[in-house]
Amino acid sequence: MFEFDVAATDGAARAGTLMLPHGTVHTPAFMPVGTQASVKTVSRDELLGVGAEIVLANTYHLYLRPGHELVEELGGLHGFMNWPLPVLTDSGGFQVFSLAASRRVTDEGVVFQSHIDGSRHLFTPERVMEIERALGADVIMAFDECPPGRSTRAMAVEAHERTLAWLERCRDRFLELQNAGGGPPQTLLPIVQGSGFTDLRRDAVRSVRGLGDWRGIAVLEAIEPELPASWPRYLMGVGYPDDLLEAIRRGMDLFDCVAPTRNGRNGTAWVEGEGQVNAKAARFQRDERPLDPLCDCYTCRTYSRAYLRHLVVAGEHLVLRLLSLHNLRFLVRLAEQARAQIQAGTFAGWSEDWLARYRGGRAREEENRR
Amino acid sequence: MFEFDVAATDGAARAGTLMLPHGTVHTPAFMPVGTQASVKTVSRDELLGVGAEIVLANTYHLYLRPGHELVEELGGLHGFMNWPLPVLTDSGGFQVFSLAASRRVTDEGVVFQSHIDGSRHLFTPERVMEIERALGADVIMAFDECPPGRSTRAMAVEAHERTLAWLERCRDRFLELQNAGGGPPQTLLPIVQGSGFTDLRRDAVRSVRGLGDWRGIAVLEAIEPELPASWPRYLMGVGYPDDLLEAIRRGMDLFDCVAPTRNGRNGTAWVEGEGQVNAKAARFQRDERPLDPLCDCYTCRTYSRAYLRHLVVAGEHLVLRLLSLHNLRFLVRLAEQARAQIQAGTFAGWSEDWLARYRGGRAREEENRR
Repeated sequence: MFEFDVAATDGAARAGTLMLPHGTVHTPAFMPVGTQASVKTVSRDELLGVGAEIVLANTYHLYLRPGHELVEELGGLHGFMNWPLPVLTDSGGFQVFSLAASRRVTDEGVVFQSHIDGSRHLFTPERVMEIERALGADVIMAFDECPPGRSTRAMAVEAHERTLAWLERCRDRFLELQNAGGGPPQTLLPIVQGSGFTDLRRDAVRSVRGLGDWRGIAVLEAIEPELPASWPRYLMGVGYPDDLLEAIRRGMDLFDCVAPTRNGRNGTAWVEGEGQVNAKAARFQRDERPLDPLCDCYTCRTYSRAYLRHLVVAGEHLVLRLLSLHNLRFLVRLAEQARAQIQAGTFAGWSEDWLARYRGGRAREEENRR
Repeated sequence: MFEFDVAATDGAARAGTLMLPHGTVHTPAFMPVGTQASVKTVSRDELLGVGAEIVLANTYHLYLRPGHELVEELGGLHGFMNWPLPVLTDSGGFQVFSLAASRRVTDEGVVFQSHIDGSRHLFTPERVMEIERALGADVIMAFDECPPGRSTRAMAVEAHERTLAWLERCRDRFLELQNAGGGPPQTLLPIVQGSGFTDLRRDAVRSVRGLGDWRGIAVLEAIEPELPASWPRYLMGVGYPDDLLEAIRRGMDLFDCVAPTRNGRNGTAWVEGEGQVNAKAARFQRDERPLDPLCDCYTCRTYSRAYLRHLVVAGEHLVLRLLSLHNLRFLVRLAEQARAQIQAGTFAGWSEDWLARYRGGRAREEENRR
């Protein structure tokens, strides 16, 4: 089951619903990242509490630890994490290229060394489909080659062609596994790699469309030409609040990023009208207000800036979670707000105002630091 | 307000209620330790959720960081932590002797160097009363000299006499501050130092009684002679589950210890009938049961041993909290169970059975490790 309906549009921005086996995702939606089957520092119920309707998990990490067979044995990611709502797994393509201790790419696949213990492994498109099937997410991503950010045209063309060939192999293996029966209902989505070449990306979208009856697509650039309106568009790795609004304006529907929890663990938080703030800021020392007076998260409902600052200064673990929780709620809520504005037909003006306040706050914050 | 009623006894064990300005504590009670105004890894609502009716905070730490004046300005510990129930502060005596970078004791007080930045400070009985008054706990402890665990008789006598002299000064300054008005209602409790000499401890209890109209007492040994039955008896630094039951059997009422959260952060958990277990144990790898099938804590209601083990192995922060929460609930609940058994007049048999199962589990666990 994978049904996407666009309920309203406002300019290029879209408000939709995506029905998946474990529930409905209201788009635009921010998807928290649970790299190792755990959104860092946050419990299952806290994740439900921030309004997350879907979480990501990472194939590369879970294949290495605890192993996809073990996860399957324990009820797939839903059973293992005790997470009742939809899950999406990435394909490990990005991690093999960014995290593994070493890697060698051939047309067959990628041989890589684990970043944990240096052990050698082979990811082929077929193998990745088997792993993602065992993990059991509602939505699984095709295995792609992830070229470096700044590639020559020749490199981009090569990665593009290999990703297409791998997509065909993913599709075939996925259909085989599905037809064999017995597994959970899943949907495979293709990925269109970025590269700086608009014409290549246009070709990639066309080629992908020719390879199957897809239900959605993941992209690395918010301005993908020729994306069918009926597909949900998943912009990978975004984002920060301003990038999120920008991408929504351009018609993107789904987003993921580790920034909320990573920033939280680094002691920074997003605050509406103030930008990204450091919770250790001296100006918080006597501040009895919530971290973000406009926020409805647990942290903002419970603690003062003065207390949060104390926890950071005193090195208390608790604050890593409190800031992560706030940042997660901040992005999930920003997407919720965007959705309401799209439905009301007021998205453009609202998002401009919001960004001006956010960026103005950020500029003042930078000024304060000088 | 400080009213203690013994509702039932069973042998020397007692079930009581202690009424304090911020609420009632049902004894025997385990008090979680919030060293820096935060029980490590645990939120306010989680602490309420484990059934804690009172928390401890540390005068030494909070004096150094963020400073007691700041805490007072932000509403005392109750306001600062947003904690609605009773709080008890220790006097910093133990930390000055165990944590400070250096210290020099005179009859006047203790000059010590901060373990954080090496800055020099003076704690006198009067000063500590002022600090504890600013922190605003319901119950505050007198400033005592903490002699090394194995003292000669001469050293024990010296520490005993100094602690008595300091207790008088604490009492006088506390009464002055209280009579000046304006602060929160608080109760000052004396401490009887341990040392290995029963006759000295008996003398200490007698001398303490002669120094004022106390409402309770803190001790470092569970077998204190001549403790008035009408005083709640706070056994400092206990404990572990078996020590807790042992001390309840000997008539102790209140307990505190960092073990639940410290063990949790070290990856170990108490399990009824199994003893103290390592959450990384290989036997947990495929175990879909809760950590402790008899426990009602959030961790045990939500996650499997297999998932908890994965989080430990993968180095996920979340598990430090999940194990801390479980261990806190374990001790709080053990005290609750002891109370019910005392009220039913079945404490002796129940606690023997409980300890036999717990210690049997521990023996098997040690056997497994060989």
